[in-house]
Amino acid sequence: MIRIALDVMGADGGVRPLVEGAAQLSMERGETVVVLVGDDRAIRKTLASVAHDAQRIEVVHAPSAVLSTDNPAEALALMPDASILHAAKLVLSAEADVLVSAGNTGAVILAAARTFTRLPGVRRSALAAVIPTLATHGPHKDPFALMLDVGATLECSADELVGFAVMGSAYSRVVSEIARPRVGLLSNGTEPRKGTPAVVEAHAMLARSAAVDFAGNIEGLDIPRGSVDVVVCDGFVGNIVLKMFEGVADAAKTLAKDAYAARLRYKLGLMLLSQGLRRVRELTDWQAYGGAPILGFDRLVIKAHGRSNARAVRNALRVATKTVERALVPKIEEGLRAAADLR
Amino acid sequence: MIRIALDVMGADGGVRPLVEGAAQLSMERGETVVVLVGDDRAIRKTLASVAHDAQRIEVVHAPSAVLSTDNPAEALALMPDASILHAAKLVLSAEADVLVSAGNTGAVILAAARTFTRLPGVRRSALAAVIPTLATHGPHKDPFALMLDVGATLECSADELVGFAVMGSAYSRVVSEIARPRVGLLSNGTEPRKGTPAVVEAHAMLARSAAVDFAGNIEGLDIPRGSVDVVVCDGFVGNIVLKMFEGVADAAKTLAKDAYAARLRYKLGLMLLSQGLRRVRELTDWQAYGGAPILGFDRLVIKAHGRSNARAVRNALRVATKTVERALVPKIEEGLRAAADLR
Repeated sequence: MIRIALDVMGADGGVRPLVEGAAQLSMERGETVVVLVGDDRAIRKTLASVAHDAQRIEVVHAPSAVLSTDNPAEALALMPDASILHAAKLVLSAEADVLVSAGNTGAVILAAARTFTRLPGVRRSALAAVIPTLATHGPHKDPFALMLDVGATLECSADELVGFAVMGSAYSRVVSEIARPRVGLLSNGTEPRKGTPAVVEAHAMLARSAAVDFAGNIEGLDIPRGSVDVVVCDGFVGNIVLKMFEGVADAAKTLAKDAYAARLRYKLGLMLLSQGLRRVRELTDWQAYGGAPILGFDRLVIKAHGRSNARAVRNALRVATKTVERALVPKIEEGLRAAADLR
Repeated sequence: MIRIALDVMGADGGVRPLVEGAAQLSMERGETVVVLVGDDRAIRKTLASVAHDAQRIEVVHAPSAVLSTDNPAEALALMPDASILHAAKLVLSAEADVLVSAGNTGAVILAAARTFTRLPGVRRSALAAVIPTLATHGPHKDPFALMLDVGATLECSADELVGFAVMGSAYSRVVSEIARPRVGLLSNGTEPRKGTPAVVEAHAMLARSAAVDFAGNIEGLDIPRGSVDVVVCDGFVGNIVLKMFEGVADAAKTLAKDAYAARLRYKLGLMLLSQGLRRVRELTDWQAYGGAPILGFDRLVIKAHGRSNARAVRNALRVATKTVERALVPKIEEGLRAAADLR
């Protein structure tokens, strides 16, 4: 039986979507128990209004919340009883197997760093995210690739980039069921000598690696194309690329609306295309993919989007279940051991 | 009278589009003379087939070409008489005022670095490029912003980023005629403390600057939105962002073609939208914008795209003329002096 500690505080939509997502999961096949960590009264109020299996939901009272606008370090210093710290401690003490939160990203990473232990060979943790791609990936034809880091570690050494490649590869095997995920190193050219010194060194190490199916350097244009299953980069670049996708999607929507609104035939064209456009939009629908893993610790953490609705939360809980069932942490450890002597 | 040294060798389409672009410019109003530097025979053969004003075109024989696939440093070492070096020397000796090339980008930057002198306060040069944006910029409503660096300097110190802000601002004033260009520093968050140490330090310096209208940090989603006129970043990030635009445009085209080809009503919708889509495509049409400036030297260099057609070359020559007429280099020097004591 798998137990998930779900921090229900600090999300943009309040407690409700978190509790509803857990309630939905409790009605599905399986044995996963969700421990809701947060304001007891608000949780029980929402629970009372939704169908759920009370055998598979528990509540732990921890009402202090880090908000998305808070400075993570300051907030955690002021609130040693914050729900995210409380939830992390449940995982540390093995009362739960995995941590899920839709709260302040920085606070989730910091709480993990303070509560859990970094795996041998990991000096910095990584936040991974899915990005929409033209090509599909793996047996389930996922229309997205995994990218890491997207903001946990801004500047990375070669060792850290290699660690991200190993961890991303293991995650992709476990969650997307891709037998040998192709891993690309993001750079300013495909040649091995292209890139910053850290990227060039990481390339040389990965080229020698048996633990990772290394596709070499990839360029910016390979990202939307989806040339690889896992994109490795430092957190500064990854954050900019991830947000650029958001900006491009917004811009395309506005362009379509503004440029053609005046002309009837464009309007008609748009109407006819609307069903197709919905499919394109689904590609950028992070709600379907269940959150971003924080990798590098001896415990698992899934960060759901702050704007998650109940469906997104349920998907994050499913992904969390999968990572425990399929022993992600031991697999990451194994990959790290195999990569330890690459230097 | 302005004289442009045009390196006609090493472009993807051979000598022809370069010579044709120069021929077109010679038939326009103005006094600009273009000195074609390259294989004399090939140049004269093309010239014989196109309308041109022979008073405004000169030819200098320099047949050795650096190809786009060559390693820049190795190629220049093997060919001390390469057309790009020859063209740069014409500018050094004041036989020409500005250098334009559609050849190997690395070789153009290297030739400039070896032949010209860096301006006081500039430690590293920058390659600037235009990127399509939703918002328009300046009195001519340009649908693009300037981004630098996009590949000349992969890792940048705070001083270098500040230098790019100053140079990009001057270029935007001179070429796009924006009186006070808004300059944004690309980072992983808008707060002044967000970013790598170099970005955080550059932010503090720019915030004190009178030479630059600093808009603060911008994020990835601001790039396609077009929140600022000039985007400043290191060459590694800039190169990835620039190529991502190319990849997104390609992916959108393929998606539209593939996803709806099977369905008649989608096809009809696409047909109706085609005129509109053409307008969107124009936004990413670098041919209209005449090349990318290499900034930081006491002489001006414009790098045209390797795939430039005659129109793109003519536009690059027009931009080159403008930069000389409007005294870009003295304006950059002035900005650099004003920024010298920001530290």
